[in-house]
Amino acid sequence: MGLELYLDLLSQPCRAVYIFAKKNSIPFQLRTVELLKGQHYTDSFAEVNPLRKVPALKDGDFTLAESVAILLYLSRKYKTPDHWYPQDLQAQARVDEYLSWQHTALRSCCTRAMWQKMMFPVFLGQPVPPETLANTLAELDRCLQLLEDKFLRDQAFLTGPQISVADLVAITELMHDPGLLVLAAKSSKADQSWLRGASVWRLQLGRSSSRRPMQLS
Amino acid sequence: MGLELYLDLLSQPCRAVYIFAKKNSIPFQLRTVELLKGQHYTDSFAEVNPLRKVPALKDGDFTLAESVAILLYLSRKYKTPDHWYPQDLQAQARVDEYLSWQHTALRSCCTRAMWQKMMFPVFLGQPVPPETLANTLAELDRCLQLLEDKFLRDQAFLTGPQISVADLVAITELMHDPGLLVLAAKSSKADQSWLRGASVWRLQLGRSSSRRPMQLS
Ligand SMILES: N[C@@H](CCC(=O)N[C@@H](CS)C(=O)NCC(=O)O)C(=O)O
Ligand SMILES: N[C@@H](CCC(=O)N[C@@H](CS)C(=O)NCC(=O)O)C(=O)O
Repeated sequence: MGLELYLDLLSQPCRAVYIFAKKNSIPFQLRTVELLKGQHYTDSFAEVNPLRKVPALKDGDFTLAESVAILLYLSRKYKTPDHWYPQDLQAQARVDEYLSWQHTALRSCCTRAMWQKMMFPVFLGQPVPPETLANTLAELDRCLQLLEDKFLRDQAFLTGPQISVADLVAITELMHDPGLLVLAAKSSKADQSWLRGASVWRLQLGRSSSRRPMQLS
Repeated sequence: MGLELYLDLLSQPCRAVYIFAKKNSIPFQLRTVELLKGQHYTDSFAEVNPLRKVPALKDGDFTLAESVAILLYLSRKYKTPDHWYPQDLQAQARVDEYLSWQHTALRSCCTRAMWQKMMFPVFLGQPVPPETLANTLAELDRCLQLLEDKFLRDQAFLTGPQISVADLVAITELMHDPGLLVLAAKSSKADQSWLRGASVWRLQLGRSSSRRPMQLS
């Protein structure tokens, strides 16, 4: 049995892995794990990933969890173009830095905001208290500012002049609920909000002078 | 100017970086950033790390944040012994998997528990509500169970037969407040609690049959 990827394409980290595999023409069997149907709680999935989360990878007898580890494993095994995870010491460290930062920053902010804005109202039948949502959006706002100031800066992509796995990980979080970003941007000063909207847009499209779409697939 | 490490040795990720550099005889200038004095809010530190967190690294003009990125950078630049971050595809992926998992799992659980048990009572003058602390400890408990079931299993170290940077990252979190671990272990069944206590202990000492201390420094 060749490479199997256990994914639910509703999930942001699954989409990052999926886009990466497709874009690099890595052959794999898609094993869909429907979170909404609780399929990640089955015994057979626990054998692939005892953490019971997607994405997960199976490659022969070898199983692997965590989107970041999966992306790096695929980039190494299939020797994908260097820009995805550069060999250069400093360029590679920049990618590692983003991949490490995002867990408790952008991903955690986006997830919390999405739950409070969209999921809790559905499950609880009433919106979360406005102060709670306001605090969460303010934190998302600070996160986006750091994304701009610390990572994107004046570069074309998050970690340098070319797209890396860091951009995929960021884009899939940012695109999960574009409405949230608009809300977060609105709560900040106008010029900053432009910057942020623009940076998100540019992340999607790339910022090469020609403004060519990034053509992910 | 050679390698500079900006650390507060009260911080768990700083200690992982410090131990790694010392153990591998990597020459560096220690730049102490005292969090309790707010030294991470100074302008000069923001130039090193705009995220305003420790650890941070400066190597000539190159600056880097995030303990995981710093550990990998040091292991590559100074070509430290392979076991710290193995070149083998699958062994390396195991380390990446742990380093990725721990951010929102072990580290986040330990940090929350420590704040609720030790810091809030000092700052707020009263303990956090018992249910809150109980929930947090239950989550820490689940985390320790995953550490055992998914990572440690029957191995000598977290990601394989030899110590890797994953063990350093885990140990520094686990050792931050050993009292918490005892509390978490008590809340679970006796044999599991032994397992957990033992696994933590073995993590510290290594699990080689000779039970030699790991001799970190
Ligand atoms: N750090 C993990 C996060 C994985 C994760 O949170 N997956 C979610 C879907 S986006 C999941 O499987 N949730 C199911 C659950 O927690 O019950 C990664 O990057 O792979
Ligand atoms: N993910 C980061 C976490 C760094 C971190 O949280 N550092 C704490 C000390 S343990 C800090 O600098 N806190 C200061 C603050 O947040 O104000 C890493 O692994 O380096």
